[in-house]
Amino acid sequence: MQLPTIEDVRAAADRIAGVAVRTPLLRSDALDTAAGGRVFLKAECLQRTGSFKFRGAYNRLAAMDDTQREAGVVAFSSGNHAQGIARAARLLDVRAAIVMPRDAPAMKLARTQADGAEIVLYDRATQSREEIAVALAEERGATLVPSFDDPFIVAGQGTAGLEAAAQLDALGLTADIAIVCCGGGGLSSGISLAMPGIELVLAEPAGWDDAGRSLRSGEIAMVDDPPPTRCDALQTFRIAPLTFAMLRNADARGVAVTETAVERAMRHAFAELKLVVEPGGAAALAAVLGGAVDLCGRTALVTLSGGNVDADQFREILASE
Amino acid sequence: MQLPTIEDVRAAADRIAGVAVRTPLLRSDALDTAAGGRVFLKAECLQRTGSFKFRGAYNRLAAMDDTQREAGVVAFSSGNHAQGIARAARLLDVRAAIVMPRDAPAMKLARTQADGAEIVLYDRATQSREEIAVALAEERGATLVPSFDDPFIVAGQGTAGLEAAAQLDALGLTADIAIVCCGGGGLSSGISLAMPGIELVLAEPAGWDDAGRSLRSGEIAMVDDPPPTRCDALQTFRIAPLTFAMLRNADARGVAVTETAVERAMRHAFAELKLVVEPGGAAALAAVLGGAVDLCGRTALVTLSGGNVDADQFREILASE
Repeated sequence: MQLPTIEDVRAAADRIAGVAVRTPLLRSDALDTAAGGRVFLKAECLQRTGSFKFRGAYNRLAAMDDTQREAGVVAFSSGNHAQGIARAARLLDVRAAIVMPRDAPAMKLARTQADGAEIVLYDRATQSREEIAVALAEERGATLVPSFDDPFIVAGQGTAGLEAAAQLDALGLTADIAIVCCGGGGLSSGISLAMPGIELVLAEPAGWDDAGRSLRSGEIAMVDDPPPTRCDALQTFRIAPLTFAMLRNADARGVAVTETAVERAMRHAFAELKLVVEPGGAAALAAVLGGAVDLCGRTALVTLSGGNVDADQFREILASE
Repeated sequence: MQLPTIEDVRAAADRIAGVAVRTPLLRSDALDTAAGGRVFLKAECLQRTGSFKFRGAYNRLAAMDDTQREAGVVAFSSGNHAQGIARAARLLDVRAAIVMPRDAPAMKLARTQADGAEIVLYDRATQSREEIAVALAEERGATLVPSFDDPFIVAGQGTAGLEAAAQLDALGLTADIAIVCCGGGGLSSGISLAMPGIELVLAEPAGWDDAGRSLRSGEIAMVDDPPPTRCDALQTFRIAPLTFAMLRNADARGVAVTETAVERAMRHAFAELKLVVEPGGAAALAAVLGGAVDLCGRTALVTLSGGNVDADQFREILASE
């Protein structure tokens, strides 16, 4: 298995330049006080399509040759990768079909469709999205674009880390530690390439903390009988051999965050940062605010990885204080 | 009357450098499509204390001499200027008393107090905040810091325009037009200095559109029997001779936006931009989305001037679709 390198992240940065948003690195007095360290937030909720997923998606599609582009792409995703692929496909004039769960947030379904992608719905409980997507890709001769198990996707997500490192450097700072929201490990793997040597902590919803368990046991573990979670973007049943190998190389570890902590982090982002962050995008901030990671005297990079949350859910979470 | 110049804005930029946030200039595909032009949003909701007011407040206090600093400051404000002054005073170790209306949003009251300022409450309907503040300042020998009728405040707010011009320049662009939320005219006056020659449009809540009426008639008009508005930050009964003169020099004009348009703009910011914008901070975006300003083929700067909105009000507005 060939792992991507920092050179692949740099190549990705060239491909997405002027297309993806160079998202701001934000901080707040309230957050620094709460964390006891210097916390910098990579606001990927402000990324095109509302999450970091656009980076990897665009990098993957932009790297395809003409024949591949003509045959189109197939992807499966609960929503953020779907939107990233749909927008990248529209910008690059590539046909895209996306396999999405019937219970994906309405906003994510609507936006994927609005970008002109074909939506193929499946049932999370009874059907395998991988099987549906593989069959569809074979039938059409299209390229299957996984949401994290792909070196171009990982390198693309890594551009968020490359930007953050440059933004910190402009302030005369270097991050000691990165706390990253983790589903399949694409963003965290990419950041491990972009910021070599950084202490890397993965934030996962409790019960969905297979990446952390995998890293502790040294073998890829599966999510088993998981509890319900609002973090739809982090509902991944297992990480890939690719991302597992990269996260092991980076000596990463995982922390599990509760639903309550995620909701509190979303309210903090609303009140203190004036940002709309979706549940899965708030997992890393939840780990920081909940004290799961000691940041005392340290400089930390924290990802706010997405902001695609339906208004009804957001209202409910604001009210649950 | 001595009007501030672009040199004063540059001096303000030096004073606030590294203290105020260089807020990002954001755009979105959805907004460009809706507006039919290129729209760039100066996201001052991401500014320290949640609104642009910190810029002018810090500039004013940083320009005071030691004797003045020792005697402290007095301000009156419905909330955003209050927070700006309170934070600037804390950072510069100056004692601050703020005269605030009893019905100011709870978040604005709480935060002003949290920064260590003394709050003096008054009743909007029966008392004059100016009289209370003037009396208090005289009694204490403190400096009265108005929220817009002050050349240092105006110059400080102008730094938002200076930054936006530089951010656009980095993209190889120049703005043709600026649409700016307007209460007392401090932000718009400042921007007129920072971006000379720009077409300047002030967005005010309907019934509170005294700046627009003043500019049309050539004389400062007062708000008379105004309707209720959610835009607490823009409830100014009249602009000052200072800001009026500056806005006339800039050939500015006003547009009035409805409460419905403001709420729609806040929902747009939530869903499309992932930003929390307060009602008063969404007035300029409301003018754009409502079609009050024709941006077809143009490059526009739009201010999102603040994000200090209580959770309950935000929930209500999200629900009112």
